[in-house]
Order: sequence, then C-alpha cells, then structure tokens
Amino acid sequence: MNAPAGLRDGIDARQWRELAERLFDELRTRSTDDPGVTRECYAAGENAAITLLRETAAEYGLVCTEDRAANLTISLPDDDLGKPGIILGSHVDSVPHGGNFDGGAGVIAGLLCLIRLRAERRAPVPPVRLLALRGEESAYYGRANMGSRALFGLLTPADLDAKRQSGGGTLREAMASVGADVDAIAQREVLLSPDSVSSYLELHIEQGPVMVARDLPTAIVTGIRGNLRHRRVACRGEAGHSGTVPRWLRRDAVFAVSDLIMRLDEHWNRLLERGIDLVVTAGVFGTDSSQHAIARIPGEVFFSFEVRSQSYDTLEGFYELFRSECRAVADLRRVKFEFDDRIYTEPARMDEGIIASLKKYSEKLGYPTELIPSGAGHDAAVFANVGVPSGMIFVRNRNGSHNPDEAMALDDFMRGVELMYAYASTGTPS
Amino acid sequence: MNAPAGLRDGIDARQWRELAERLFDELRTRSTDDPGVTRECYAAGENAAITLLRETAAEYGLVCTEDRAANLTISLPDDDLGKPGIILGSHVDSVPHGGNFDGGAGVIAGLLCLIRLRAERRAPVPPVRLLALRGEESAYYGRANMGSRALFGLLTPADLDAKRQSGGGTLREAMASVGADVDAIAQREVLLSPDSVSSYLELHIEQGPVMVARDLPTAIVTGIRGNLRHRRVACRGEAGHSGTVPRWLRRDAVFAVSDLIMRLDEHWNRLLERGIDLVVTAGVFGTDSSQHAIARIPGEVFFSFEVRSQSYDTLEGFYELFRSECRAVADLRRVKFEFDDRIYTEPARMDEGIIASLKKYSEKLGYPTELIPSGAGHDAAVFANVGVPSGMIFVRNRNGSHNPDEAMALDDFMRGVELMYAYASTGTPS
Repeated sequence: MNAPAGLRDGIDARQWRELAERLFDELRTRSTDDPGVTRECYAAGENAAITLLRETAAEYGLVCTEDRAANLTISLPDDDLGKPGIILGSHVDSVPHGGNFDGGAGVIAGLLCLIRLRAERRAPVPPVRLLALRGEESAYYGRANMGSRALFGLLTPADLDAKRQSGGGTLREAMASVGADVDAIAQREVLLSPDSVSSYLELHIEQGPVMVARDLPTAIVTGIRGNLRHRRVACRGEAGHSGTVPRWLRRDAVFAVSDLIMRLDEHWNRLLERGIDLVVTAGVFGTDSSQHAIARIPGEVFFSFEVRSQSYDTLEGFYELFRSECRAVADLRRVKFEFDDRIYTEPARMDEGIIASLKKYSEKLGYPTELIPSGAGHDAAVFANVGVPSGMIFVRNRNGSHNPDEAMALDDFMRGVELMYAYASTGTPS
Repeated sequence: MNAPAGLRDGIDARQWRELAERLFDELRTRSTDDPGVTRECYAAGENAAITLLRETAAEYGLVCTEDRAANLTISLPDDDLGKPGIILGSHVDSVPHGGNFDGGAGVIAGLLCLIRLRAERRAPVPPVRLLALRGEESAYYGRANMGSRALFGLLTPADLDAKRQSGGGTLREAMASVGADVDAIAQREVLLSPDSVSSYLELHIEQGPVMVARDLPTAIVTGIRGNLRHRRVACRGEAGHSGTVPRWLRRDAVFAVSDLIMRLDEHWNRLLERGIDLVVTAGVFGTDSSQHAIARIPGEVFFSFEVRSQSYDTLEGFYELFRSECRAVADLRRVKFEFDDRIYTEPARMDEGIIASLKKYSEKLGYPTELIPSGAGHDAAVFANVGVPSGMIFVRNRNGSHNPDEAMALDDFMRGVELMYAYASTGTPS
C-alpha cells in the first residue's frame, strides 16, 4: 500500500488542514443526531466512527488492528506492534446529542499524525500508534473509561452487568455485539500490558472556560483531578415559627450550611493563593419541599459536597477541613451533620518528562507553554494510574462540552496537532 | 340572675382554678378531633366553643350579646354596653388538629375574670367585657383575624370571596351561616367604633420558646412583629462542569446566596447587640431539582426572604441592608438577583400605659416583669392598629402552637389570669 498521489513526498500545512476539515465533516455527517451528534458506545454511532477511521487508514496505507476490548489500533505498515510504542489516543464515542470534538478531536489528531509520518516516510523510534478507544462516556451505562479500563483488567463483572440507563441490555451484551472478549474482561485479564506502552499522549478540547479566558490556543495538562464526594449530607437543626423564635434559640439549617460554605470558600481562597489545585462545589442544595415554608425556620437542609484536585493530599486535606468545619458549625449553631458514604475517584498526574517535552516543543513552535489541570476525567488518567507515562494537550474550546455548542477553531486544533506531531515524530526522551 | 351558690361571697383561689380546669376540659371535649382539637371558624367546632361560653355565662349570671360579625360579647348584668369599656379578648377558633390553648386560654381567662367580678359583686369603671372572637386562624380561608377585622371594616369583598382552602364554599357563605351581617361587612361598615373600646387586653400562650428558655411563667408583650417578605428571590449565576471551571471563573449561585445569608447574619447579630427587635429567615431555599447535579456548578438558586420586627423603621432599614448586600454579592460573585413582589404586614405596638400597668401589677403579685415581643400575629394587632390602646399577656407554653403538643401548665395560666384580673378590676390609668 502506498500513500495517495500528492502525499508521496510529504504533506504540506494546507493539505493537512484540509484533511482535518474533511475528517471532522465526515465524522459529524456519520453521527449527526439533531441537535448535535450521538456516538453511542458499543453501538451504531461509535461503530460508524470506527468505520470512518478504518476507511481513512486504508486510504492512506495504514494498518488497523482490533484489540480484545474492541478498540481500534492504527499503525504504520512497518510496525509489527511487537515493541513498546507511543500511543496517541482518545475516544470515539460521544454523549447523546453531544459535540463533534469531545473525543473526536483527539482521534483525528492522532490519525493526522500517522498520515503525516507515513507521507514523510518516517519510522520513529519508539513506534507511534493511534488508539481509538470505545466507551469513554458514562452517559450510557453510568461507567466511564470502559474501553481503556477493559484493557487493563479494571472493568469488573458488576460493571459488565450494568444496564443501559435509558433502557436496553447490559454493557456485557453491548460489548459482545462489537466483538469484545467479554469473558476475558470479566476475568479481569490484562489485555494490554502497561509495559508495552512507552507513553500515552491524548489531545482533547478543554471542557472548561480557562483557555478562552486566558487566550491560550493550546495548553499542556499537568494532571487530571480526582475527587472526594458525598452525594447527600443532611444538616439537621430544628424547625419553628419564623416570627416567634429569636436568634439565640434558633437552630436554622440554612444559616448553618451557609456558614459552612463560606468557611470552605475562605479556605479554598487561601489555598489557591498558595498555588494549590482545588475546586469545591455543592451542586445540589435545598430545604425539604414537603416541609419548608416562608414562615418556618428551616429545620433541615440537604446538600452535596465535592472537592476536586490533582493531588491526593489536597483532597484528603480539604476533606479534613470540611469535616472539621462541619463540627465547628454544628457546635456554634446547634445543628447536626449526617454524611452518606464518601466516594473517592483517584487523581492522575501527567508525566513530568512528557510535560517538559511538550513545553520544549511548544516553545520551539512559538506556542504558549502554560500548564493547566484537567477537571474532567480522561482515558489518560487510566493509563497514568496503571503506570504508563502519560500526557495531554488541551485545545481551546468555547461553551464546555457534552453539548452541541462546543466550539473549537480549526486553527487552534492544527496547533495542537502540530505539537502532538513534534512529540510523536521525535520520540520520548529516554 | 345570681351567681351560683358558693360564689355569692366571692371566689377563692381553689374554686377559680377548678373552674378553669373544668372549662378547659369541657372546651377540649367539645372540639376533640384526634390528634388535637379542631375548631373551624364559622363552622361546627367554633360554634361548639361559643355554645360552651354562652352556657357558662348563663350559669354565672352574665349577659351574652352577639355583634354583627357573629362574635360573642359577655358582660356583667349591670353593663348596658353604652359606655366605652375594657375588652378582654381572644379567639375561639383553632387550626385543624391544633391545641386547646391557642385562643382558648385567652377566652377562658376573660370569662374567669368576669365570673370573679360578678362573684365579688364589683362594677369596675370602665366596665369590663369579654369578646370571644371568631375566625382568627388563617388555616381555613388564607386570611387571619377575620372576626376582628370585620368589626373595623377591614375585611374586603375579595376576602369574603375567598374559598375554603381544603374545599367547600366561600368565607361569605360561612360567615352568613352563623348570622354575620355579610352585606354590611362587604360594604366595610364599621361595626364596632374604636372609640367605644377604652382598652383591649389579650392573654395568649407564647408560641415561641423564649419563656421556657428564660423560665418566665408570664410575660408582658411589647408589640406584635410585622414583616417584609419576598416569597421567591432568584439568584442567577452560570451552571458549569464542577471539575473544569476554576474559582475565578465561577458564578456559583449557592456560594453567592450563602455569602448573602452570612452578611445578613452579621448585620442581624450587630443590630441585636444594639437592642433592636429583629428576626430573619430564609425558610425556602434550593437549587432547581430539574437541573442540579453533584458535578454541576449550580447556576440558579431560589429562596424566600423574611424579616420581622415590631418596628417599621427596623423592617425598612433591614430591607435596605438586604438589597444593598444583594448588590454587593452580585458584583463580587457575578450573579444577578431577581425579586418578586415585596409583601408588607404592619407591626403593632402595645400601649405604653398598659405595659406600665401590667408591669406594676406583676411586681405587686411577685411575677416577673419581663417584656417580650410577639412574633406571631394576634387580634390585639388589629385593635392596636385602629387606635385602641392594646396590651397582651403571654403565658409560658412548650412545643409552640398549631399542634396538639402545646403544653401550658395550669399554674402558669392562673398567674396570667390573676394579672389580667388585677388590670381589669382596677381599670386603665387615665
């Protein structure tokens, strides 16, 4: 197989950009589900995206291999996959009625790099591969990163038994339908040895507003925030007539939780001044609608608590502050706090060597060398936490993700791909 | 008509107490509706209580007169009602499944005073009358103090058109059914001239926890708190992914409203230190359950706001603080506050002369002379706000009111009646 005519002697910037544009258009066309796109994992939309990748790989003389978790690997024809390689990865699925770029950008970026390596007849050491992962989004089965977790024996039989959330069969059935070896996965067999991956690099749109606000077309990710959560904390005081109970006899749950939140806000602010990575949220908050009234002192408030950070120590430290402020508020305002189970999601550090390389290449290319954390989860966290040196490139994007209004400029994307190519074509520093 | 045998030469403390006990038992028996009592206004329960009062009045040689709002006046036989008199008043109705003492205590207290005046053959100047008011509770028609407001032309045709809240006819129909002159009331005729009332004194159980906490069997009321309210204030920020938006780019509505509440709490605390009467409540508070999530920065919060005080100036002053802190929080945290209509309920001051008399008699009787505000509304506020010098005696009570767990000790009640009798039997200071 040979590269198509015109790419025999490399690929110029204009050709590369047009190819990117065509691939995004084609990907969108094949998964349009107004409004936005739907690429359901282990189902039609994701399959259509995989088919597009296979067709494009064939067109450019690249080789496709499916792993036992039904993810697709695309490699150069002279790569027998026998030696550890650099994986350029991201996911092909999307949330229902999501945007075209979340996942899609990373997969197309990797494919563009392989096409250029092929066009430029380069055989980098270590070899470079694209891994198009399935099943990253939790929107369908309530589990995230299924494709990457399956590779490392991290998907449990309970995960496989999860039912499709809006009706239908199990994750096991869906994975089997696209050829995954669900028995091996259920036995938690390691399908991809972490030793066979010299490094993992993922390009992704930023899902927050930082890069727009700070005018950064690209940025280098330092780590992926883990979190500590309580789904439901109850603050119990005492209900009473709002007119007849003076301040000193009140046990007002709304005032108590407001006090708690302002204490946490102050700690948060101080920790940020010391450069600590931290976000704090109480997304669900309310009095009980079956009991509350304008003229009734609220005796109960229920709220959720979440702290996110790239650092395990920060998570644990802030959690201790949270519990200690709960005790202080309980004493001061004569309320009680009751906690449901604490839920922990591990943070992941990106590899220092990869971060240093990406900074160096960014400098050479005249790009910003800013570092930012990832607040959302990514497959890169799964790779990092099994010991694979991992990195991420963020591309500026407006309006968040998981909605049809995602807005990534193609120019910004091409900068991100250029940076990825610089890394992939010259190999990891040893 | 003469007083029954044994009361011809007065009534001793034991007899008075036994009579009180019998009247409370009889009142409870005639309106029991497990759990608690139900004395629905302008309906069976309230009528049964009025009948008990009529029977008891007849038994003790007192005279009954019904006014055109169907309230019952009980007077001494030598009182032709032609001269201005002291009214001992309270209400005979109760909330559904309420307690026996809310309203009932004041009516029985007034009746006990008249029975003792009669037994002691006293003819105080000004003359003393019991006014047993109907329709004080808002539980049935969403309007409070209907019996007293009707007397002063303060019940509107719209009020009369109000439907019974749990189904049934209008207030007009209910009032007509017990003989009220609903046409005169609809024309806002003044059925009782404020000039014909030299003073109004109401005994009532405390509906808050202050007297229990401060060990006061009786207390003298300084005023009845009015209030300023918003049923629904919206705080609008911006929703977003809880992991990806850093603190400096957040517009978190829960943090904003918590900040607001802590600012109000601080003002409140400072004003209390200066002796200002004030309570502040946000009884309804919550994120939108159709949108909120643990991992979503809350973009909206809805809450109610209420400030209560005996002073109009305090209400207006604190309301200005509230709005000004809303502006400050809106600036600082980049949110917007949206307010529905402001609702105002007028406060009422008790008469300084009556307060002074009640303090003097309390001292003589060896009772505490503590002054406390009333947080809940009372008919005394209606009388005060049409210009009748008015006073209230509170009796200690556990567990609030509007529930079957009200708990007033008979000894505390008898102290309150003794104080009322001291005032009624010696007349108002001129």
